[in-house]
Amino acid sequence: MSEITVGNYLFNRIKQVGVDSIFGLPGDFNLALLDKIYEVPGLRWVGNTNELNAGYAADGYSRINGLSVLITTFGVGELSTLNAIAGAYAEHVGLVHIVGVPATSSQQKHLLLHHTLGNGDFHVFDRMSAGISEKVYLLTENKDIPALIDDAIHTAKLKQRPVYIAIPTNVGELKVPKSKLDTPIDFSLPPNDPEAELEALEEVEKSIAAAKNPIILVDACAYRHGAVEETNALAKLTKFPVFTTPMGKSVIDEDYERYGGVYVGSLSSPEVFKAVEAADLILSVGALLSDFNTGSFTYSYKTKNIIEFHSNYIQIRRATYENVSMKPLLAKLVSQLTPPDLPLAPVPKLAREPAEPATETPLTHKYLWPRISGFLQSGDIIITETGTSSFGVTSIVYPAKVNGISQVLWGSIGYSVGCALGAALAAQELDPSRRVLLFVGDGSLQLTLTAISTMVRWKTNPYLFVLNNDGYTIERLIHGPESSYNDIKSWDHQLILPLFKADPETSESIVVKTKKDLDTLFTDEKFKVPNKIRLIELMLDRLDAPESLYKQGELTSKTNAS
Amino acid sequence: MSEITVGNYLFNRIKQVGVDSIFGLPGDFNLALLDKIYEVPGLRWVGNTNELNAGYAADGYSRINGLSVLITTFGVGELSTLNAIAGAYAEHVGLVHIVGVPATSSQQKHLLLHHTLGNGDFHVFDRMSAGISEKVYLLTENKDIPALIDDAIHTAKLKQRPVYIAIPTNVGELKVPKSKLDTPIDFSLPPNDPEAELEALEEVEKSIAAAKNPIILVDACAYRHGAVEETNALAKLTKFPVFTTPMGKSVIDEDYERYGGVYVGSLSSPEVFKAVEAADLILSVGALLSDFNTGSFTYSYKTKNIIEFHSNYIQIRRATYENVSMKPLLAKLVSQLTPPDLPLAPVPKLAREPAEPATETPLTHKYLWPRISGFLQSGDIIITETGTSSFGVTSIVYPAKVNGISQVLWGSIGYSVGCALGAALAAQELDPSRRVLLFVGDGSLQLTLTAISTMVRWKTNPYLFVLNNDGYTIERLIHGPESSYNDIKSWDHQLILPLFKADPETSESIVVKTKKDLDTLFTDEKFKVPNKIRLIELMLDRLDAPESLYKQGELTSKTNAS
Repeated sequence: MSEITVGNYLFNRIKQVGVDSIFGLPGDFNLALLDKIYEVPGLRWVGNTNELNAGYAADGYSRINGLSVLITTFGVGELSTLNAIAGAYAEHVGLVHIVGVPATSSQQKHLLLHHTLGNGDFHVFDRMSAGISEKVYLLTENKDIPALIDDAIHTAKLKQRPVYIAIPTNVGELKVPKSKLDTPIDFSLPPNDPEAELEALEEVEKSIAAAKNPIILVDACAYRHGAVEETNALAKLTKFPVFTTPMGKSVIDEDYERYGGVYVGSLSSPEVFKAVEAADLILSVGALLSDFNTGSFTYSYKTKNIIEFHSNYIQIRRATYENVSMKPLLAKLVSQLTPPDLPLAPVPKLAREPAEPATETPLTHKYLWPRISGFLQSGDIIITETGTSSFGVTSIVYPAKVNGISQVLWGSIGYSVGCALGAALAAQELDPSRRVLLFVGDGSLQLTLTAISTMVRWKTNPYLFVLNNDGYTIERLIHGPESSYNDIKSWDHQLILPLFKADPETSESIVVKTKKDLDTLFTDEKFKVPNKIRLIELMLDRLDAPESLYKQGELTSKTNAS
Repeated sequence: MSEITVGNYLFNRIKQVGVDSIFGLPGDFNLALLDKIYEVPGLRWVGNTNELNAGYAADGYSRINGLSVLITTFGVGELSTLNAIAGAYAEHVGLVHIVGVPATSSQQKHLLLHHTLGNGDFHVFDRMSAGISEKVYLLTENKDIPALIDDAIHTAKLKQRPVYIAIPTNVGELKVPKSKLDTPIDFSLPPNDPEAELEALEEVEKSIAAAKNPIILVDACAYRHGAVEETNALAKLTKFPVFTTPMGKSVIDEDYERYGGVYVGSLSSPEVFKAVEAADLILSVGALLSDFNTGSFTYSYKTKNIIEFHSNYIQIRRATYENVSMKPLLAKLVSQLTPPDLPLAPVPKLAREPAEPATETPLTHKYLWPRISGFLQSGDIIITETGTSSFGVTSIVYPAKVNGISQVLWGSIGYSVGCALGAALAAQELDPSRRVLLFVGDGSLQLTLTAISTMVRWKTNPYLFVLNNDGYTIERLIHGPESSYNDIKSWDHQLILPLFKADPETSESIVVKTKKDLDTLFTDEKFKVPNKIRLIELMLDRLDAPESLYKQGELTSKTNAS
């Protein structure tokens, strides 16, 4: 028993690194490989409804679990999920995409197999994935397969990017030594160059000592590259006001009294904008700057005193310290920094409840988001779609220890539904008491509806809030408020869970029309317990939106016309 | 008014070349372009539920209409439809894929816009499309845009392949001369090289004169490259027995008495196999050979006397006549050939009705397909999914003047549902009396369900036959009949049309459990009239399948293991 099949090796490694659910769809070029999943106890084959949903789900699972695995079939399967892979690449999500491809003998003979372009070229598709993957691995008989598999998993996890592994049908069956499995893959970060780190540290300390009004600005990569603890520690040690970008939301515990809200350039609330404007030093952690993450690049701090902490470099004003990683550097900074003795700069106050009473009047975004704030609990996973909801949550406070997920940079419509599936499966495995809350518009839902079928299949209990505003509201605010291309076919959302045969005992479909309806629902103790899959349809006016989205719509419209 | 915008020029051209429906989804990089659609009377913006469905629908529309147009947005939108584009490339379908991309100024500044990978590279996605497109057009201010648009449309239509056009948000608004619109795009084939054509013709005639037992074998490209009339004329002139491949089905009028059925190598019926085996000359028209189109390359004629007619060359045994196109060559052949005076070789008899009575016993594939044969009418458009249905129809006879569509080479699961949407819209425009019949399994349907929402939206009246066999039966027959990866979440299919709010007056959902149920339904005169959207759920055993699929399953399993 010193040898096992490549497939068995692969899935043993996957299980070892803490991935319990594998996303994807069967196809004849991966069927024999899928058999091997069942040889490794504790692995679950999810079986998605289509490859794009599978890719989004793998992305969502990874954002909670730190890594995920997706299996598709040659050509037809893999191409359908490329949008999800590109999103994982853009937003730093660790994901192993395994593709079952034709047998090496078929490839050598250039057979005109189904799922090919009919031109005998078996590498068109791996070339397409190369542009949106950290690395591409084409397994063949002649290579050291265990080493390649280990390298692929290591790269995906450490770089937090997707990798691509092509496994020919016959290669999955080859025998390889089992011995490597005895040594776990080492995910520890390579140490920083000591001299560069020391120099950078000194510069950071000097800048802090000289500052009169420093702040900390936290972005998504602080979370994705494992520096959450260090970032929170730095904030608590220094007591500097802390802000996040839209993508960085939830990295900082928002019940911390020095947390001041979300900074989105000119789209920020006036208080936040003023506070960041007034800073004379910005410690920027894990920045992933993009238009929707910065209020269309309206950051006023460009010319300021700014220090950027990244996963692979530190930028201090104009100086770049390559190959210095933020996580160990921040840990050292926290352990040795004497915080300056500055008067505490005031931080903006954040609303935690609506400014108006819960009357029998139509629900509005203005009422909705602060009311949601009060419904949230520590541990919640909150997923918002790029649309009214991702803009809505920037104005509210999350409890501590939540995960906020929004695909702000890549911004693929429909992403949130697939993501919620993956997050729900991860929560089910890691801590079933954690609630998963999805906020998605009726327009976006149409792209990825059937991901809900897979949520039902695996008996997950998410809260699916469907913002029914009769079409693509975010697009209406950018261009064409009354244009028919922003209309959608109206659906009876109350039939979604019944279509997927959700058990009436463990499922519920609800319509919320007024502020009072929402308030009543949120004060119901039974509703707070995640013991059912719930679809809550929130009826909203088609042109109602959070204030910041109106402003973003105008800015985007201008950029497109320029 | 001698100048118009690029967008206006584009959509005027599209309307001119006979495309009335435009598929796709809005996104902020294409919104202003979409405005221009409404400036051209008679154009319809379909508004799909997701980009993959849009791509499949464009493919289906083109297979009926000869050309189609699809519009997506940069990155997120275009990547979601690549699987459909690759399918159109593989199977020779003319399709113009227009992508709204960021303004040229944003590209030059390498802005970190949403829908980018965050690396400032704006050409990752057009490079990905290049591998699966006939040609890529990147419009900018500096180019002769009307000429490029004309060339793109010309290429897609004449080559019957997808082309890609990137239009930056600002470029769609540029003014260009209107004058070119006065000259229609010339789609006439370039003339064949006269000497090569003459030589090839003589060789063909010599081979025919020498043959004792010639046959004609027709494949998909005869249809896709416009040689249907010439092929039928050749058959009728020579009276040679005519067979088709699975993909070529319906090119030849199947009520023609010399039509002998479908040849799929060793998967053929014994009579067909014998007839093709016995031939001493095969005139092969428009071949698109692939494993599923040939019974895994089990053609016995490889070493035979064979003449292949293609869109861009003629192959006579070992000799290739490049740049000789089959359509004009076949026309000349028909006009000048003196058919040999041969005794009429017998052709296989084809079943047009079930061999068993319509009893109250569970429905089976053996009963189903011949019974469907009797329900079909001239003019029908019959779309089958790569699964039990695409194999089922190979055994039955179609009436004359039908279109049979099956994505045999590319074989993407779920394709047929999107395709049916596109075909239904084309039929609605070209001849509303034509019926559209979709045959799809419950497993495949899960990938593209929401295309049905768009069918409802546009009040089309297709027959949606859902073969409910509790999972991926085709995969079960290749590998893992009892494996859970071939299981799916069961759905209540009767709720699909209600979910999409189909009007109960013009919609109908039906369950068929027995042979008798089916027979009763098919003899109901009201049911025959396409005045409603109908979903007919056919209950079948999970391992029941057409005979040829059992055989294909074994062959594919062997190729994958080799």
